[in-house]
Amino acid sequence: MSLTDSSPLEVAKAASISSRNLAILSTEARNDALTAIHGALQETKDIILAANAKDLELATKAAEDGELSQSVLKRLDLGRKGKWEDMLQGVLDVRDLEDPGGKETTLSFRAISTTISNALTNTLVPNASIQLVTARDVIASLLDLDKHIDLVIPRGSNELVRYIKDNTRIPVLGHADGICSTYIHKDADPEMAVKILVDAKLGYPAACNAVETLLVDEAALSTILPAVASALLEKGVSLRCDAESKSALAASLPKNESTILQDATEEDYTTEFLAPILAIKTIPTPPDASASTSCSLAIAHINAHSSKHTDAILTSSPEIANQFQSGVDSACVFWNTSTRMADGMRFGFGTEVGISTNKIHARGPVGLEGLMIYKYRINGCGQVAGDYGEGGKRWRHERLPLDG
Amino acid sequence: MSLTDSSPLEVAKAASISSRNLAILSTEARNDALTAIHGALQETKDIILAANAKDLELATKAAEDGELSQSVLKRLDLGRKGKWEDMLQGVLDVRDLEDPGGKETTLSFRAISTTISNALTNTLVPNASIQLVTARDVIASLLDLDKHIDLVIPRGSNELVRYIKDNTRIPVLGHADGICSTYIHKDADPEMAVKILVDAKLGYPAACNAVETLLVDEAALSTILPAVASALLEKGVSLRCDAESKSALAASLPKNESTILQDATEEDYTTEFLAPILAIKTIPTPPDASASTSCSLAIAHINAHSSKHTDAILTSSPEIANQFQSGVDSACVFWNTSTRMADGMRFGFGTEVGISTNKIHARGPVGLEGLMIYKYRINGCGQVAGDYGEGGKRWRHERLPLDG
Repeated sequence: MSLTDSSPLEVAKAASISSRNLAILSTEARNDALTAIHGALQETKDIILAANAKDLELATKAAEDGELSQSVLKRLDLGRKGKWEDMLQGVLDVRDLEDPGGKETTLSFRAISTTISNALTNTLVPNASIQLVTARDVIASLLDLDKHIDLVIPRGSNELVRYIKDNTRIPVLGHADGICSTYIHKDADPEMAVKILVDAKLGYPAACNAVETLLVDEAALSTILPAVASALLEKGVSLRCDAESKSALAASLPKNESTILQDATEEDYTTEFLAPILAIKTIPTPPDASASTSCSLAIAHINAHSSKHTDAILTSSPEIANQFQSGVDSACVFWNTSTRMADGMRFGFGTEVGISTNKIHARGPVGLEGLMIYKYRINGCGQVAGDYGEGGKRWRHERLPLDG
Repeated sequence: MSLTDSSPLEVAKAASISSRNLAILSTEARNDALTAIHGALQETKDIILAANAKDLELATKAAEDGELSQSVLKRLDLGRKGKWEDMLQGVLDVRDLEDPGGKETTLSFRAISTTISNALTNTLVPNASIQLVTARDVIASLLDLDKHIDLVIPRGSNELVRYIKDNTRIPVLGHADGICSTYIHKDADPEMAVKILVDAKLGYPAACNAVETLLVDEAALSTILPAVASALLEKGVSLRCDAESKSALAASLPKNESTILQDATEEDYTTEFLAPILAIKTIPTPPDASASTSCSLAIAHINAHSSKHTDAILTSSPEIANQFQSGVDSACVFWNTSTRMADGMRFGFGTEVGISTNKIHARGPVGLEGLMIYKYRINGCGQVAGDYGEGGKRWRHERLPLDG
């Protein structure tokens, strides 16, 4: 079923009613549907990858004409090594497919949607549970149906997410910028810093969990930063430095490296480059500083500039790490590891629906559990509120064991 | 600190920064602040109740002029038996005060806010954590500050909640209508039905968890409904009946009762009366019905008409009850008890922030825990994402025991 045949209201109602039928299906019936989808996707792999290849062809042209970024182009490719297998593996855990987003994938989506719709026909899961909308102009009508739609999870550009938040009263599970920072405290392990930052910047620069800003304790400018900068420059990363870090690096790096350092602007510290570019900023250590003062300044910078996605600290001090992890107001706050660890699959959530920078409902990597909500059921035998209170029964609240 | 002195942006920033300072305070420091607030409220009880009495005086006039409903008027009175004590008890558990909402309480709020602000001065909790806004015209500017405000919990009319949802991209924890239903299945216990419906309708008719719609299995029209109707009529409830229930009651009630039955309109089934009025609707039992068919129709009526707050079933069958509780898409779905049980204090949540009819984050009665969000912390020692995957380390996910 798709919007070609029905009005937005009909489509939203059909999916809403199906979701309640889904709610009372047995786990077995739901698993049967997932197995059917998994099998059908495997059988139609060639058809879907052919549709995806056509999408990629059009998108490559759009990228050549400058209408599409290279990072979006990379994400579209379902034939990329491991991508298809990961997607099928995810189906075995959760209903929702990973969704690369955008009109660039219309053909791939149609092919996947047809496969899934056919697969569901022989299961107890209602066909109407999944609806595909391909016409952009019905989005506005759908956003108006807060009575029938519980949640919107936009996947796409930051502009898309803001457009949707501005135009609906349906709750939006936001998946926006990933402006991730890593702060090097003066007592960080230098070798670890090199390894972590190479991974965080270069593991997959187009991902939202790649590091975009490097904050460096003033006291680490000449002790730890040079080796980190060298390793990144060697691998083709452009470093955009503030004055202090640039002069510290100029003094310690060989000339062929120091001459390619660039100057950072204020804007660089709020930019998601999605490319091999890193903004570097020095965090001052005031002369009368306690051990934690530069950490406090790093926290303040992050809370003011980051997108509340993932930020990391490199330090050998558990106290400094704890101060940072408590004070930074982001979904993921890591100590001595790469920001790239922020990932639903890595967290064991099965297929990732997205990474939320909201502070309600689901935060950080979101899997199946992040889409669930509870319901309060009371099984009574005639108790009423009026039985309780003054002169009557007393409310009794006690913690019950969670397991078993 | 109030908006009299500062811009909306300054106020929102101050509260936002304070919230992060609050996050790293020890439990002891936070408890000290609550104790200080509790003590100060106790000391200034007379001043606050005097301010509240003035608010009440103005509100009573407004109610007499028809500008304010009786149900709102009743909720304003902090001097009402047990209300003040309940409020102070709540402070010992959570920071947020129960908030009756609206401009009718300006004087009471100012008095409470001054008391709390003074109390915090001698604790580690930043004074700026609590901001009072009394000018309505700054609301629009505040709603624009999604970068600094994590969540809006509107307390007030349904119109207020919709206005706010329409005018902000900040997540809104909705506390809107309470159109609660109770469905009497044919095998319900008649005595229990009387007791539960009297409580649900009359315990506190102005509350959002009062029952507004009574759904009656056709097979219970002459066996269970008459006693329920008699009891309610006797206590002054207006019954708005559909044709079937009206004629069944006319046949079984004494004349002085049957003549005061009213006719229901379709609108009555989507109305929150907040008064001693109950809409009654018959759920047909088709001739070839399995035991569950009229239950399915009741579920369908509720999912189409209720506000997803609280709905109840009266039945002696666990299977029918389970079908109802699984199929009804409301925050609270009760079996053989009163809708009035839906209450944060009764659930053991301490002071109730509100009852959410959202399907995300917090649903149903919301207490302190419903305002919390998690953060992912990883304490690493140099692990990076690139270490894992093909040829490298494997991700290992296992369930850990929850207790201990």
